[in-house]
Amino acid sequence: MPNIPSRRTDQRLATRFLELKRAAGTHSPSIATLRQELPDLEIRVDACFLSNPYATDLFMKRLESDLLVDGGLRSALEFYPSQIAVLAEILAPVIGADPSQVFIGNGAIEIIQALLRNWVPRKILVPIPTFSSYYEFVNPGVEVFFHSLRSVDGFALDRSRLVADVTRERPDAVILINPNNPDGSYTSQAALYDLLSALRDVPLVIIDESFIHFAFEDENLTPLSSVPMVREFPNLVVIKSMSKDFGVAGIRAGYAVMDPSRRRVLTANGFLWNVNGLAEYFFRLYIQPQFQCEYEVERQRYIRESRTFYGALETIPGLRSFPTMANFALVGLDANRQADAVVTQALLQHGVYLRTASDKIGLEDGQYIRVAARSTHENAEILTALRSVTAT
Amino acid sequence: MPNIPSRRTDQRLATRFLELKRAAGTHSPSIATLRQELPDLEIRVDACFLSNPYATDLFMKRLESDLLVDGGLRSALEFYPSQIAVLAEILAPVIGADPSQVFIGNGAIEIIQALLRNWVPRKILVPIPTFSSYYEFVNPGVEVFFHSLRSVDGFALDRSRLVADVTRERPDAVILINPNNPDGSYTSQAALYDLLSALRDVPLVIIDESFIHFAFEDENLTPLSSVPMVREFPNLVVIKSMSKDFGVAGIRAGYAVMDPSRRRVLTANGFLWNVNGLAEYFFRLYIQPQFQCEYEVERQRYIRESRTFYGALETIPGLRSFPTMANFALVGLDANRQADAVVTQALLQHGVYLRTASDKIGLEDGQYIRVAARSTHENAEILTALRSVTAT
Repeated sequence: MPNIPSRRTDQRLATRFLELKRAAGTHSPSIATLRQELPDLEIRVDACFLSNPYATDLFMKRLESDLLVDGGLRSALEFYPSQIAVLAEILAPVIGADPSQVFIGNGAIEIIQALLRNWVPRKILVPIPTFSSYYEFVNPGVEVFFHSLRSVDGFALDRSRLVADVTRERPDAVILINPNNPDGSYTSQAALYDLLSALRDVPLVIIDESFIHFAFEDENLTPLSSVPMVREFPNLVVIKSMSKDFGVAGIRAGYAVMDPSRRRVLTANGFLWNVNGLAEYFFRLYIQPQFQCEYEVERQRYIRESRTFYGALETIPGLRSFPTMANFALVGLDANRQADAVVTQALLQHGVYLRTASDKIGLEDGQYIRVAARSTHENAEILTALRSVTAT
Repeated sequence: MPNIPSRRTDQRLATRFLELKRAAGTHSPSIATLRQELPDLEIRVDACFLSNPYATDLFMKRLESDLLVDGGLRSALEFYPSQIAVLAEILAPVIGADPSQVFIGNGAIEIIQALLRNWVPRKILVPIPTFSSYYEFVNPGVEVFFHSLRSVDGFALDRSRLVADVTRERPDAVILINPNNPDGSYTSQAALYDLLSALRDVPLVIIDESFIHFAFEDENLTPLSSVPMVREFPNLVVIKSMSKDFGVAGIRAGYAVMDPSRRRVLTANGFLWNVNGLAEYFFRLYIQPQFQCEYEVERQRYIRESRTFYGALETIPGLRSFPTMANFALVGLDANRQADAVVTQALLQHGVYLRTASDKIGLEDGQYIRVAARSTHENAEILTALRSVTAT
């Protein structure tokens, strides 16, 4: 009976994995945590992790030639980094903003926290499913109104339903993640413009475009952004993480574009040296035309490979992929399958770490997983694992 | 007349330097800013910068062997860092705290900001001279009461005067920087204990011990800390920057030890991924016994060299050094000299960048400079510059 010890091990690993997921709350346990807590487990592909691996390659190549010679790395780590105003000055022209509109954060998450602290005293409207910090980080006592995106609509934003909810609920702030996390649904820039016109009376509208580098509206994959709309809509703040498109989550870099009056409030009594030396290096690299050009090649390559991957996902029986413009796809499972079981099986049998969406408000029926697009090689492993676990 | 063009250049550089200082407000313009704005200027020694250069050497040596092989650096930059709770667990035993008491910050400055936001609704008592963020980062409308340290006392804390002010003013919070910045005055741990006993009714007492690694109470230079007192005084929060003693300001790493109830409030709705990948590497290195041992050698070496430097400072005619237990000394100038002129002269004629203290509340008469202790070689250049500019 050679299988029995292996099955017992599997059972133990499965139990421990689900415990770790529960302990991690609304986030996935990191690969480092899994490797530490489940050393028996071989994790081959992290399909929870939302980042362009080719951009990480590019960044590391540049970092090695720029910083790992002539003491550059030491300077970045030894000395105090520049202030927000200095970095805003260099970043603004590249993102189509005025320096006075630009706030730089220790990751987008610091900016989300600061906005919710300062400008959401009473009520916030959050479409669901969503990124959990938008409701978890509100001030104590703030009411969260969940506007449900519907699976029948492919989780796409229905503008008239949203405006009706806003008119009735009168929130201090409306959150729009575009493309949305965890489903990848995309609202066109023209549609956003119309929506912002209808939301002029809302004190704060946040467009989180952290995944915008993976979206496109034409076949040239021309880069998109809602930043230019901040000038016309002073109630708009556009937030952008650099972790996903540049694959540098450990560096902690993000920015926001907002009316200068808001930036003045934020920097008046805080946010000194909040951008570390390597994040400063990143921003100074990001604005270089040569780097922009090299990055654009990797961005387009990754988008095209991801589209091929999403196409292949759709061919797997028992899975329903939702339309996505992000670097991940939300996948619905047949009624007889639960996400936690599929995720555990893919991890234990194939070393492929998928993201259960069963902790997401709005997806609590436990029948959705979120699958990150990775490198071509890793995508092939993800597809093999999904074909296998849905066939059994 | 070969000197005239040079004098004109000097005049222009001096004017521009003082403009940059004014623009930097209560901080010094960074070396990077000076080099960018004044490319003609040769800056040989940064005697504004408060950090142990030998510790930076040690850190870089370890980082190179740990991270610059086997893709370690890539992992630190590509993936999300650990959460505060994970890092608190590993750091707590080394600093003599319980994990539930430990908050990790994106530099000490993030912690200062968070404490002032959350627990100073009305009034704060700040001894002066001080680190400017303690009064600049208060919430709008908060009253700042300045408790003056006196030059006749060597800027030492007079506990009975402080307690009298606290009793009369009834602030929400009392700030104690120990050793104090910018004068280096030190209050013994026993005296702090007595003081805390007298301040039990103050809702929040902050001891900022960011310079404590340079202080000593015995000739073995035994390390000191106020962290153990947090258990007995739940109103106490001890803050510690890692920038000064480890010479890694660009990494942004700091921690605070506080009553668990306060840490729960801070982490309940924010501070996700606020510690970047290299700061996480730093903390994981810091707790290693072997690193602790190697660091202790460099700490003691730097303290001993700094004491020699302070001794030499005292022999320079026209300067009055104040007693210091930090890695810098506050130096008073003769009545006929102004700090801004001395600093400008030292920079232009000797390439030695000193810190004017004329922007410090409590030192506005403009007759104080702050001099950082650097390496032996740099200290010699600083002494030469000071001897020269005070002799003319």
